Amino acid sequence: MPETPRRPESRYGNRPTMKDVAARAGVGLKTVSRVVNGEPGVTPETERRVQESIDALGFRRNDSARVLRKGRTASIGLVLEDLADPFYGPLSRAVEEVARAHGALLINGSSAEDPDREQELALALCARRVDGLVVIPAGDDHRYLEPEIKAGIATVFVDRPAGRIEADCVLSDNFGGARAGVAHLVAQGHRRIGFIGDMPRIHTAAERLRGYRAAMEDAGIPVQEAWMSLGATDPARVRRAAEQMLSGAAPVTAVFSGNNRVTVTVIRVLAERDRQTALVAFDDLELADLLQPGVTVVAQDAAALGRTAAERLFRQLDGTLLVPERIELPTRLITRGSGELPPAD
Amino acid sequence: MPETPRRPESRYGNRPTMKDVAARAGVGLKTVSRVVNGEPGVTPETERRVQESIDALGFRRNDSARVLRKGRTASIGLVLEDLADPFYGPLSRAVEEVARAHGALLINGSSAEDPDREQELALALCARRVDGLVVIPAGDDHRYLEPEIKAGIATVFVDRPAGRIEADCVLSDNFGGARAGVAHLVAQGHRRIGFIGDMPRIHTAAERLRGYRAAMEDAGIPVQEAWMSLGATDPARVRRAAEQMLSGAAPVTAVFSGNNRVTVTVIRVLAERDRQTALVAFDDLELADLLQPGVTVVAQDAAALGRTAAERLFRQLDGTLLVPERIELPTRLITRGSGELPPAD
Repeated sequence: MPETPRRPESRYGNRPTMKDVAARAGVGLKTVSRVVNGEPGVTPETERRVQESIDALGFRRNDSARVLRKGRTASIGLVLEDLADPFYGPLSRAVEEVARAHGALLINGSSAEDPDREQELALALCARRVDGLVVIPAGDDHRYLEPEIKAGIATVFVDRPAGRIEADCVLSDNFGGARAGVAHLVAQGHRRIGFIGDMPRIHTAAERLRGYRAAMEDAGIPVQEAWMSLGATDPARVRRAAEQMLSGAAPVTAVFSGNNRVTVTVIRVLAERDRQTALVAFDDLELADLLQPGVTVVAQDAAALGRTAAERLFRQLDGTLLVPERIELPTRLITRGSGELPPAD
Repeated sequence: MPETPRRPESRYGNRPTMKDVAARAGVGLKTVSRVVNGEPGVTPETERRVQESIDALGFRRNDSARVLRKGRTASIGLVLEDLADPFYGPLSRAVEEVARAHGALLINGSSAEDPDREQELALALCARRVDGLVVIPAGDDHRYLEPEIKAGIATVFVDRPAGRIEADCVLSDNFGGARAGVAHLVAQGHRRIGFIGDMPRIHTAAERLRGYRAAMEDAGIPVQEAWMSLGATDPARVRRAAEQMLSGAAPVTAVFSGNNRVTVTVIRVLAERDRQTALVAFDDLELADLLQPGVTVVAQDAAALGRTAAERLFRQLDGTLLVPERIELPTRLITRGSGELPPAD
């Protein structure tokens, strides 16, 4: 049944080729190639026969094959950390919009916070001849990309910096944003302030912890170990961390939450308790303003991160950007109530 | 400066080829090809020379070229509607996990609800020789995919059905879910119930409206035109629609919100008003349970949609799935307070 789309044996490999087109049209391969690539030297009559053969067989020119011929494609790869983290949604869309404005296709996938998977994905995209890569790194050693970069692959790192190579990086001011958010809690009279963040090996988590420590030092408050918890962002781990800080003889009166994944659990823990605890959270959340109290956040501009990274990538491709830079975008403190609560005691 | 990764002229086309490897190693192309593809007939000494040349030049075998040779790659494409819609996050991740379990790379992009862009993206992915496509369609005519399907590209549509072709579809029970959600409002004593949904040309929006009408008919309530508003999901449009239904002599006492994008605006409008209005929303939201009142939702299982679609795609590729089917996954009513409010009057 040649017509059914479900022939198992038709799954792989038997897509029509230029050779099939040539055979059916009764012309040479070179002639088909001329027609497919719109090159001169073909009579209208022959072109018509080839076109009929192309339509009849459903032949489609393979872009990758064209790359091999012309050494050029128009696609960029985006290596995300987690497809399901809402923070990366606007970032991905911004990259795609810039790619589209340059007539390029965006191809992406995620590392699930696994450095090996990041490398595997990045190299697979290079093997598919993307012109450039926007990478949200999971790992901290990107020397594996050096041959690709030498070979002409444009590369920009976003949200987190590149490790052990010179490369463009577009980051948020994680240190400054966290420092301002914690200083805001200090300004409300808090001294016992907790910090709950992501795994310390992650650049953004380490930078935000550094911002917390700096703000506490600015205020002359010696930080206690029991006030800091870094680790996986799964609800069980975050819940344990929050409940520990909030219990005991001298519980924290305020919490600084290190990212949006941590915040959704911290909000739940605080909502279950009678005593009000102040909260400032890094990253905005869709309904944060409608909670009672509204959640005070240190907001990043995810779309600006993606847009800036993608624009630098295309400037590399245009050859108008010659020196790798590290760009830091500012964050914004948005006060909504939770961060303005005074100490309970 | 041959060492700098930023040579503009190095941007396109001068990646090392097998020919460069052959020239440097002083062997023939066929020999390099044998080494690259692990074929026999090469002496250890020659293999060593070729390998050195490969390492020195940073040559990487092009998977797409391999496809042309062996007629096989291991990648699937995912055509999303909107990279920034949180509903598609868990769906994308589930597709990627299944692809990964099958050793395949996931390549995706979004149509931004534009049928032309959907077609452009789907065909571009086919031209890059993906083995299969998971499509969340923006358009309603997919005959453009028939040549690809005939040529052996596995295809599964998810969230919305295929148009004008026979294909696997994995959908939520949009009709049944909306009908149950509206029936729940009727059971609380509501009769003037509003429906605010997405553009009626979108399958899910039309099905959910049909569910609303069915529930009203089941209850013997004649629906008034003023109670229904379908259109774009941008906040301004949704706000106007909600405020109109909630004003006038006989305002609605309950609202059924057609999707998560609509809900975030409806919640804001209701939060601004003194008179409490009941709300049941299609699609769950991350913090919906923490709002006051909690938002009663008709929840879809986005991850199950993605997982089921991807698993069917690979069964097509294995040749164990021969007949296209339309699968509907059930939805779940989650009561949290907003849907249990009685009529205000």
